[in-house]
Amino acid sequence: MNKCWLRCVKCSRQSEFQLEGRCAQCGGTLLVDYDLEKVRSTFTRNSLSQRKLSSLWRYHELLPVRHLDSAVSLGEGGTPLIRLQGLGSTPDKKQIWIKREEQNPTGSFKARGFSVSVSLLAERGITKVAVPSNGNAASALAAYAARAGIEAHVFLPSDCPPLIVEECKLYGAHATLVDGMIHDAGKVIEDRKTEQGWFNVGTLRETGRVEGKKTMGIELAEQLGWRLPDIIVYPTGGGSGIIGMWKAFHELIALGMVEGELPRFISVQEEGCQPLVDAMADAAGASKAIKCEIDHSVSPTGLRVPLPPNLDLVVSILKESRGTAISVSKDEIKSAQLTLGKQGISSSPEGAATLAGWLKLQHTTDVDSAATVVLFNTSHAMKYYPVGVSN
Amino acid sequence: MNKCWLRCVKCSRQSEFQLEGRCAQCGGTLLVDYDLEKVRSTFTRNSLSQRKLSSLWRYHELLPVRHLDSAVSLGEGGTPLIRLQGLGSTPDKKQIWIKREEQNPTGSFKARGFSVSVSLLAERGITKVAVPSNGNAASALAAYAARAGIEAHVFLPSDCPPLIVEECKLYGAHATLVDGMIHDAGKVIEDRKTEQGWFNVGTLRETGRVEGKKTMGIELAEQLGWRLPDIIVYPTGGGSGIIGMWKAFHELIALGMVEGELPRFISVQEEGCQPLVDAMADAAGASKAIKCEIDHSVSPTGLRVPLPPNLDLVVSILKESRGTAISVSKDEIKSAQLTLGKQGISSSPEGAATLAGWLKLQHTTDVDSAATVVLFNTSHAMKYYPVGVSN
Ligand SMILES: Cc1ncc(COP(=O)(O)O)c(C=O)c1O
Ligand SMILES: Cc1ncc(COP(=O)(O)O)c(C=O)c1O
Repeated sequence: MNKCWLRCVKCSRQSEFQLEGRCAQCGGTLLVDYDLEKVRSTFTRNSLSQRKLSSLWRYHELLPVRHLDSAVSLGEGGTPLIRLQGLGSTPDKKQIWIKREEQNPTGSFKARGFSVSVSLLAERGITKVAVPSNGNAASALAAYAARAGIEAHVFLPSDCPPLIVEECKLYGAHATLVDGMIHDAGKVIEDRKTEQGWFNVGTLRETGRVEGKKTMGIELAEQLGWRLPDIIVYPTGGGSGIIGMWKAFHELIALGMVEGELPRFISVQEEGCQPLVDAMADAAGASKAIKCEIDHSVSPTGLRVPLPPNLDLVVSILKESRGTAISVSKDEIKSAQLTLGKQGISSSPEGAATLAGWLKLQHTTDVDSAATVVLFNTSHAMKYYPVGVSN
Repeated sequence: MNKCWLRCVKCSRQSEFQLEGRCAQCGGTLLVDYDLEKVRSTFTRNSLSQRKLSSLWRYHELLPVRHLDSAVSLGEGGTPLIRLQGLGSTPDKKQIWIKREEQNPTGSFKARGFSVSVSLLAERGITKVAVPSNGNAASALAAYAARAGIEAHVFLPSDCPPLIVEECKLYGAHATLVDGMIHDAGKVIEDRKTEQGWFNVGTLRETGRVEGKKTMGIELAEQLGWRLPDIIVYPTGGGSGIIGMWKAFHELIALGMVEGELPRFISVQEEGCQPLVDAMADAAGASKAIKCEIDHSVSPTGLRVPLPPNLDLVVSILKESRGTAISVSKDEIKSAQLTLGKQGISSSPEGAATLAGWLKLQHTTDVDSAATVVLFNTSHAMKYYPVGVSN
């Protein structure tokens, strides 16, 4: 078993590894720490290059399961990194890549988090789980829970893309539509979980999902030949994608697997629901900004998270990395989706938002003309069908 | 450049490599032959285990492109092979695996064929292509053509799943719905191609697609540790998936990369449109069977190909491999789709048909109780939305 424990990002208290994701002392987010000395003995560039496993479990030394045998795997991770061609009229040497996370099982990066999370739940004999979700987390949980024989209850805003609701049912999950936003769905779970015996696997509620998402960062570094890109553009809702990758890069730096600085993280949100953009702009900091008004015309995508569970942490990561947050309009997203389509790439609104954000920022940010930029296409266009995709 | 040429499966005539897939002499299907002596010098188990490329282009020595640089790649191949759990009450040691071809770009195995085909077209400066398709070939062509800057025209039966039509448009293809079956769509292309300057990339019309699909077989062998499975269950429409894998296994055997016999191929079709099943049952052979009546209640999936372009070749492959063909009902397909869903796997009707076929055959065929069986999930359930998926 991998030796690991938990550390609270707020009060720094260390504790034994467990599923519960919040500090018993201060309520802060608990992240997993590993014995990196031990990890170093088998986790090397060379040993990794020999591994046959192409799923995220190739990085098992940095995952908190007891036994690799208990991995609940459906083929998550190992997604392609594709170079985009001639974007805009930039005559420079920038390399713009897109990470095709939509090629994961269940069509989104959410598969990574739940492969790890459900493995942990299964190891501990949990039989019923619940999640509040804008859609993709729900269908990913549904698939992994089905595979592990765990009963899944998913709670979705009532305007969730209908295809995704159908997908949850295909995997046998109990799907409930909730009138409101993702935090309203979360409230339903909190109110009923004790009576129902559900374990809540919502964002930052448990300790496995961030670890699974972390593998996006490790995999990216390996695909780039153990280098870090200069810039990562990520569509941010709850924030666990950013938190996961930030954690990955720190672990890789500490292990001596990569050199140099943390990539600059650019979070993209949709105009009208941009708590992170507001918090970054607000000198007074994050805690004030989450009081932002919710614009009900915002699209029902994974970006629509008005009350992220730990906004402060994401803000501090963006700042530490000299990154930023930017919002884009529905029209900019639509146009970026068509641009990607013309390069043969099917992107979800969230994935397309990264291109929209990058196109807006590229001329204003002080970016080296030879920078390596990676956009994350977190899901594909078709999950949102029949919302107009091609026009 | 890889040294390769063409050989007609009917009259055995050899000719120079070209795009055109039919023998100028007898109209037979042209397949690609390689200089295996040359291939052997770099294509070894050991060299392959060192390759970083996880797309199908890792097998470039066995692909007919001039330069690896000209590969039009969107991250195709490298799909997971997942073991299914406790199917039925069989107490034996059989291993049932599912190859998740739905995790390819554009959500189906068709991406493999078009990555290779479009690379060849691009190398030769072709600017306009057309394909008749039940859907998945169309959207795959659309994506790869978009990536290569080639104009794509796709012709689909008018009852094609609407999400797939939308997907073709997202990639900028010109999509036309045709009243009739896939062969009627093919006729429209043949009638107009000269006037329009289209290259017809329909099944077995050109020499690249089979080569791309061949990589399913090579990859499967590599994933199984350079062993061949005992049985492959494949959903068969036009037949190029079977032809490609059969070719792959012969090449691997000739190269000494694998030992033993050809896996037994089991083709699955839907009741009502089962030319292969009929041809296998008919002592008089294939050519008579294609006169089968078309049942218009058959679902509009990739299995609905009443007039496969080279039925004789597929029949001869099934026979050579001691395989068979079986048809399954809509209800059996639906039930298999739910069974796979409960294991966390989203399967298209075609993919689910393989499980349905296997469940029907497993007790009647003389199969070793320790056999390794691989089902091919060629696409996912959601491409067919909103046709009832979960119920
Ligand atoms: C497709 C997609 N992209 C991005 C996000 C946001 O990710 P995170 O919660 O990690 O910030 C989500 C979350 O639902 C999503 O479904
Ligand atoms: C999902 C799917 N499975 C199977 C097939 C049949 O494949 P083949 O033409 O190689 O026999 C198709 C063809 O359209 C398809 O789309």
